[in-house]
Amino acid sequence: MATEVKNSQSTILRTAGPRGLDASVMIKNLVPESEQQRVPGPQDPVRLSQNATTAHILTIRWTADSGWEAPQISPYSKIALEPTASVLHYATESFEGMKAYRGYDGKLRLFRPRLNCERMRISNDRVCLPDFDSVELLSVITTFLALECPRWLPDPGSNLYVRPTMIGSGSALGIQRPREALFFLFAALFPQSSSAKVSPGIKLLASDPEQIRAWPGGFGYAKVGANYGPAMTAQAQAREAGCSQTLWLFGEDKLVTEAGASNFFVIWRAKTSNEIELVTSSLDTKVILDGITRRSVLALARERLTASADPDVLGDLKPLKVVERAFTVAEMLDVSVEGRLIEAFVSGTAMFISPVAMIRHKQQDIEFPMQVTETGLEAPVSHYSSRLKGWLEDIIYGKVDHPWAYVIEEKVS
Amino acid sequence: MATEVKNSQSTILRTAGPRGLDASVMIKNLVPESEQQRVPGPQDPVRLSQNATTAHILTIRWTADSGWEAPQISPYSKIALEPTASVLHYATESFEGMKAYRGYDGKLRLFRPRLNCERMRISNDRVCLPDFDSVELLSVITTFLALECPRWLPDPGSNLYVRPTMIGSGSALGIQRPREALFFLFAALFPQSSSAKVSPGIKLLASDPEQIRAWPGGFGYAKVGANYGPAMTAQAQAREAGCSQTLWLFGEDKLVTEAGASNFFVIWRAKTSNEIELVTSSLDTKVILDGITRRSVLALARERLTASADPDVLGDLKPLKVVERAFTVAEMLDVSVEGRLIEAFVSGTAMFISPVAMIRHKQQDIEFPMQVTETGLEAPVSHYSSRLKGWLEDIIYGKVDHPWAYVIEEKVS
Repeated sequence: MATEVKNSQSTILRTAGPRGLDASVMIKNLVPESEQQRVPGPQDPVRLSQNATTAHILTIRWTADSGWEAPQISPYSKIALEPTASVLHYATESFEGMKAYRGYDGKLRLFRPRLNCERMRISNDRVCLPDFDSVELLSVITTFLALECPRWLPDPGSNLYVRPTMIGSGSALGIQRPREALFFLFAALFPQSSSAKVSPGIKLLASDPEQIRAWPGGFGYAKVGANYGPAMTAQAQAREAGCSQTLWLFGEDKLVTEAGASNFFVIWRAKTSNEIELVTSSLDTKVILDGITRRSVLALARERLTASADPDVLGDLKPLKVVERAFTVAEMLDVSVEGRLIEAFVSGTAMFISPVAMIRHKQQDIEFPMQVTETGLEAPVSHYSSRLKGWLEDIIYGKVDHPWAYVIEEKVS
Repeated sequence: MATEVKNSQSTILRTAGPRGLDASVMIKNLVPESEQQRVPGPQDPVRLSQNATTAHILTIRWTADSGWEAPQISPYSKIALEPTASVLHYATESFEGMKAYRGYDGKLRLFRPRLNCERMRISNDRVCLPDFDSVELLSVITTFLALECPRWLPDPGSNLYVRPTMIGSGSALGIQRPREALFFLFAALFPQSSSAKVSPGIKLLASDPEQIRAWPGGFGYAKVGANYGPAMTAQAQAREAGCSQTLWLFGEDKLVTEAGASNFFVIWRAKTSNEIELVTSSLDTKVILDGITRRSVLALARERLTASADPDVLGDLKPLKVVERAFTVAEMLDVSVEGRLIEAFVSGTAMFISPVAMIRHKQQDIEFPMQVTETGLEAPVSHYSSRLKGWLEDIIYGKVDHPWAYVIEEKVS
């Protein structure tokens, strides 16, 4: 009798159209804690492989006819796809990069996670993957992390990389909107950078015109797979040239857009006004990713590093002007030659805030000011970027209360 | 003892570097014929699903350390991938579209298959997938088809769609060259068009500037997944506008590049010279695919449709001039208004040679000359394109001997 009621309810739901994503109907099929693998320490070499994950995976199936099925947390395992699946042929795929942070206060936090969920909706739209309610998605992600993190993210001041992914799983060789999709999410154990370790700074190789990452009318603004595979050639060229990332240039004017898979910022002294400017590419041509760290850097800089900022917060730093606009590599070369370069850094979830030491452009290097650190090593000057990094760390690890930190309540096990 | 010898040999091979692709070491794990599903007839509705396949799948694993493993023919089944697999996140994927043709003489043929294998090498290079010896790959493909086609492609004048695919299967979240890859190939049972059926002609919707398929320095010339998923939005817009495909325009001048996933040709009378011209976009900007059908159309037209052609072959057609160059939609509009349009068609493995009836550009339609066919239906004038199509059909179905046809010897079962 109960079954009949259930059937009739599901019939009613179905006649009302495809189901929306619903976090409340989560199904859990868990691995007993005693059967889970040991948790590698923060510096454990297994983390270097970039494929060590936690014990579970979150999956949500979608079909054009029925909509979103119940989210499931299951033992981490391979994904079986039809050889004809859309994602394997036509790159119908999007993803997000997030981190879960274990605060110094023991609390678990995400950083502005609603923005990731909203951006995934935008990415999905660009490659004909299904839409969803971002509040429900965040709730699903939260449930997963509340379950995994008590065990897998024990150390204060450390983080777990979280990868929400959407793929066109439907079988169809015709080039058309996938009729089946799969959302999945797992958490990966990345190496934990020791805060004591000084980075020697990133070296960037400016891309050549044969390698253009994105184009107006393309999809550079979306976090879709199609932006990444074709970027690996330039990435390999960068490594061969002794650099670690690509500085992506665009167009005949060689506009500076992104660095590797991060946003790029430069701080220089303006030629005529002598003002200090924090400059990054604007979003208007839609060739660069609307990075969440980028957005946060801009907001923090506007609040705390400009002339209108609290002098106590600004401290010994000179105020700067925040500038979002197109700028060229030639402009950077001029600034460099004229001794007006102050700092550069990249921003993103994976790279966080990382100072840039050098840009190689046609055998001509743009070198950023360096300093000798307390440990005797050379590192890029990073007065502004280390301040920005520190503020962000304070937020994500809970040293300060801030609306950007999203605290997840974990069950006491 | 035999095992020891084998082990020592494989050690020798390994120290000599990663193994190249080797068709001679094929492993076969076959489904008994009695256990295979029935073969659907040429017009069977199961073919409409575009996911009915033959009984087997061909797979070849590759690793950066060991190179290419033995090719395997196994029962068709799902592919299990790590959730961290490169292809699911970064679109490290390439494919080819081929067809196996059952000739009227009963022989099995491919059309210029070496070109497909060579193009896959180019595609792979663009997304950091491994290289291979194209002669070996063709040999592997041939073995697979010689096995499948006696059963699955029985009807003279019909074809089987063949999909070679390569994916980055290695587990790695860092954006870098995949260290593991998988080649797989299957054959799909598509609907067989009846030659008696007259097509009413394709309607194309000109893309808007918000939807650019490819750009210089991008990867439009490569058959990589990244070109297709992001194209589905425009494809959906075309369907909503009552069209079946997108006419891809590029740049401020609105250059005509491709149509859907096919190459585009137009035949017009030149303004000043009054010559008939067969015009298609040149390959120099690398934004369009170097289609094998495109290449063949150009070669046949140069050989048989120009002023230097054999008059008996040319027959009642006026000779034309073959022109590969950039041309704009505005130019096509002018030609249309001035009554100089003759024909247009798209070319590709999936679409073969299909006449175009209309192009919709900003509510302004370019209409191609129509004719009433013997069955009383309207169809685009296709004097030239039907001649080209006929010549190609003669080659692929073995009505004539031609070096482009590649005959596969099948085992008599």
